[in-house]
Amino acid sequence: MMRNLSVTFWYLSLLALCTQQVQAQKSEQDALMIKKIHDYSLAKGKAYDWLRDLCVKVGPRLAGSPGGLAGVEYTKFVLDTMLTQGGQLQPCQVPVWQRGDNDVVTVFGSGRWHARKIRALTLGGSGSTLTNGVEGTIVLFKSLDEVDKLPDGSLKGKIAFFNRAMDPTSLSAFSAYGGAVDQRVYGPSKASRKGAVGTLVRSMAIGIDTVPHTGVTVFEEGVNPIPAFGISTVDAEWLEQSLEQTSLSAHLTSNCRKYPDRQSYSVIGEIRGSKYPDEIILVGGHLDSWDVGQGAHDDGSGCAQSLDVLNIFRQLGYQPQRTIRCVLFQNEENGLAGGKAYAAASAQRKEKHIAAIESDAGGFSPRGFSFEAEEKVFLSYFGQVQKWAPLMEPYGITFSKGGSGADISPLKSQGPLLIGLRPDSNRYFDYHHTAEDTIDKVNRRELQLGAAAMASLVYLLDQYGLK
Amino acid sequence: MMRNLSVTFWYLSLLALCTQQVQAQKSEQDALMIKKIHDYSLAKGKAYDWLRDLCVKVGPRLAGSPGGLAGVEYTKFVLDTMLTQGGQLQPCQVPVWQRGDNDVVTVFGSGRWHARKIRALTLGGSGSTLTNGVEGTIVLFKSLDEVDKLPDGSLKGKIAFFNRAMDPTSLSAFSAYGGAVDQRVYGPSKASRKGAVGTLVRSMAIGIDTVPHTGVTVFEEGVNPIPAFGISTVDAEWLEQSLEQTSLSAHLTSNCRKYPDRQSYSVIGEIRGSKYPDEIILVGGHLDSWDVGQGAHDDGSGCAQSLDVLNIFRQLGYQPQRTIRCVLFQNEENGLAGGKAYAAASAQRKEKHIAAIESDAGGFSPRGFSFEAEEKVFLSYFGQVQKWAPLMEPYGITFSKGGSGADISPLKSQGPLLIGLRPDSNRYFDYHHTAEDTIDKVNRRELQLGAAAMASLVYLLDQYGLK
Repeated sequence: MMRNLSVTFWYLSLLALCTQQVQAQKSEQDALMIKKIHDYSLAKGKAYDWLRDLCVKVGPRLAGSPGGLAGVEYTKFVLDTMLTQGGQLQPCQVPVWQRGDNDVVTVFGSGRWHARKIRALTLGGSGSTLTNGVEGTIVLFKSLDEVDKLPDGSLKGKIAFFNRAMDPTSLSAFSAYGGAVDQRVYGPSKASRKGAVGTLVRSMAIGIDTVPHTGVTVFEEGVNPIPAFGISTVDAEWLEQSLEQTSLSAHLTSNCRKYPDRQSYSVIGEIRGSKYPDEIILVGGHLDSWDVGQGAHDDGSGCAQSLDVLNIFRQLGYQPQRTIRCVLFQNEENGLAGGKAYAAASAQRKEKHIAAIESDAGGFSPRGFSFEAEEKVFLSYFGQVQKWAPLMEPYGITFSKGGSGADISPLKSQGPLLIGLRPDSNRYFDYHHTAEDTIDKVNRRELQLGAAAMASLVYLLDQYGLK
Repeated sequence: MMRNLSVTFWYLSLLALCTQQVQAQKSEQDALMIKKIHDYSLAKGKAYDWLRDLCVKVGPRLAGSPGGLAGVEYTKFVLDTMLTQGGQLQPCQVPVWQRGDNDVVTVFGSGRWHARKIRALTLGGSGSTLTNGVEGTIVLFKSLDEVDKLPDGSLKGKIAFFNRAMDPTSLSAFSAYGGAVDQRVYGPSKASRKGAVGTLVRSMAIGIDTVPHTGVTVFEEGVNPIPAFGISTVDAEWLEQSLEQTSLSAHLTSNCRKYPDRQSYSVIGEIRGSKYPDEIILVGGHLDSWDVGQGAHDDGSGCAQSLDVLNIFRQLGYQPQRTIRCVLFQNEENGLAGGKAYAAASAQRKEKHIAAIESDAGGFSPRGFSFEAEEKVFLSYFGQVQKWAPLMEPYGITFSKGGSGADISPLKSQGPLLIGLRPDSNRYFDYHHTAEDTIDKVNRRELQLGAAAMASLVYLLDQYGLK
């Protein structure tokens, strides 16, 4: 008995040792592959070249606009050239909202003295003014609650001005955005309910600069879509200080228009898995952008990086076991039609996504990934992923719980691990939704490091799956 | 005996528990102070405002130039305004080298066909050409060794062209710089030794762009200082490819000049310690910059951050136990006169620096600190510092062994822990030593996070000292 025990012990020890050695070898192999991915991406990756084309040749890509379709065409061409089976188009119905050529906000005092044009952009989804514009006294608000509490009709003929600043002390610029963006999305609708004729919203920028930001505003059913503008933070600060001294009015013009919904497309390409083709690992970003600037960081970067994930694997001759699918979603900015259509089609086909990674936080230096999933699978999935953290540490990449991305969020109920690339967020809101979001604001190394981080995580997901 | 033992055990346990509690409370206090520092720096810190003045009002600040003295005057004014005892000037003798107004490099083939001006900047310390310029056949080199191996006189009448690229796969852009910069610093001198009449050096940039970089070149004693130029990476790539097809010559003009050394100054301000005034914690950067651009990242950022460390402590009402000294060094770029004079004066006064932190790697998002010291104290010091790592982790700051900064390196033999701020390095060599190193390339949040990281580490050094 004693002898048997000791043999068993010896045998088990040997087995454990072998397993350890195999694991160590595997881990070394993984580290080597991740280094190869980074080397290739930095030296020869294509994300930056594709992004430059998307910015300069295609330009802004608002869903439903001609530029939106040009973006579809260009990225399908990239996939057609890269993959033998080419790129696929997935249709979706998108809203059509078009900026006019006369976004003007003029502020003036009593007797129309000291009229001053301030830097403004009509918000996406805003209503238009009549030919002569609209005009009213400006009323300052710091929160939506203040408007909700007002009696009906109390803003009749007035212009509501929302000026709660993003918190500059927030370490994540996205948290600061989350704490202020309700003013832009819901402020105009709430002001309209109380009778306002127009809305000004402080731009979603942390810095104090002269750049106005656009972005979506949503009018509730049955509410009159009044004209709504983002104004630069320099002008917002000036306006609030001036309102402390005196009453001011504003004259607004915007001949933006809404048209009936049109068909547009998300663009999809994949490398089919050799061993488990039915297990899908998705990488993606959104192809549409706002209509000013070039949508370089938001979200040309995410699209170019996602395309490069496929490219890097092909160039390194890596044949995945699972299916790696790149999805460039349509209409994230003002409707999420692409993300919803994709999830619906996936459910109908009973597809199994084990994970989906979205890059939609800018093409800056990657600092980590954040993970979410349905509650019943999250702890198990995140536990498996955390074992890979040491492999990404040398690249300054950390893993955390948190949100992923708007386009992949409709997939959540289908059970995959949802993952967001988390780049350095400090500069994002200098450019987000502005005419400044152009290719010269993107550094090639930072963008390619993001693509490499995504490809590395996809590689690990492909090697080990998620149980 | 048993009873005594158990009482002793009980007493020791209680003591340990109390110590643990005190330590936990202290650690919580530290975390709170570090949060306060970050909040203040992000919301109200002054580094960015001072940097803007240094860039726009003062401009480039090459040591020995009028701009160099204007930088001294401006930063002394900042310290005079901030501190009751004001700022101090510490003299040093600096070289005087002045760029001319005609940095021109023209490349041409036989019969002078297809003459092409390429983007070039005379290197600092370069010799000048005669009125008519110099001209010679271009010879390509990838390393200094290739030149060293040539027989004497074999480059007579030729122009040496050094074109070894920075390694794009290096994760640290500074490592890539370290692997290529020998060509700029020593290449021209070595080529001159073999008879060359001029030198072209590929700019120290990782990207392929049109921006030429300057920087120091050093001629050995007795070597004829031939004209030497940095050429843009776009032009360097074109030139190498063209040389594969055909022989090419270049015509060089540069009327740069050397003058006798002049006096300039480092600028110093301090908050004297209340408990251990003789223990000095230094924070600094270098005040001089190259003569093109505005020296925004190199190293106006480090100076503005160092000034802000003092400012943050004053504004938060924090009275340090040890002396916190801000030193803005003169002449880092082409001589290190300020750093050497400071160390010599410190040795003479028998001052005791416990630590010195330099920020000279750009005003980008801080990612960590690297530490070095004399071998006999390093492990002990680094061990003490590593205990604070968890306090900095929430800010994305990690601690590593490594180099610190050129200006503080002469202090090393005096025993302090030398520390370098390590920001994200990906964009640094897009701007370094170029006309592009201007204030618009600096993001306020990134700069202020760096100042906050420095102030936080100074706070910990002040609280706990180094034994």
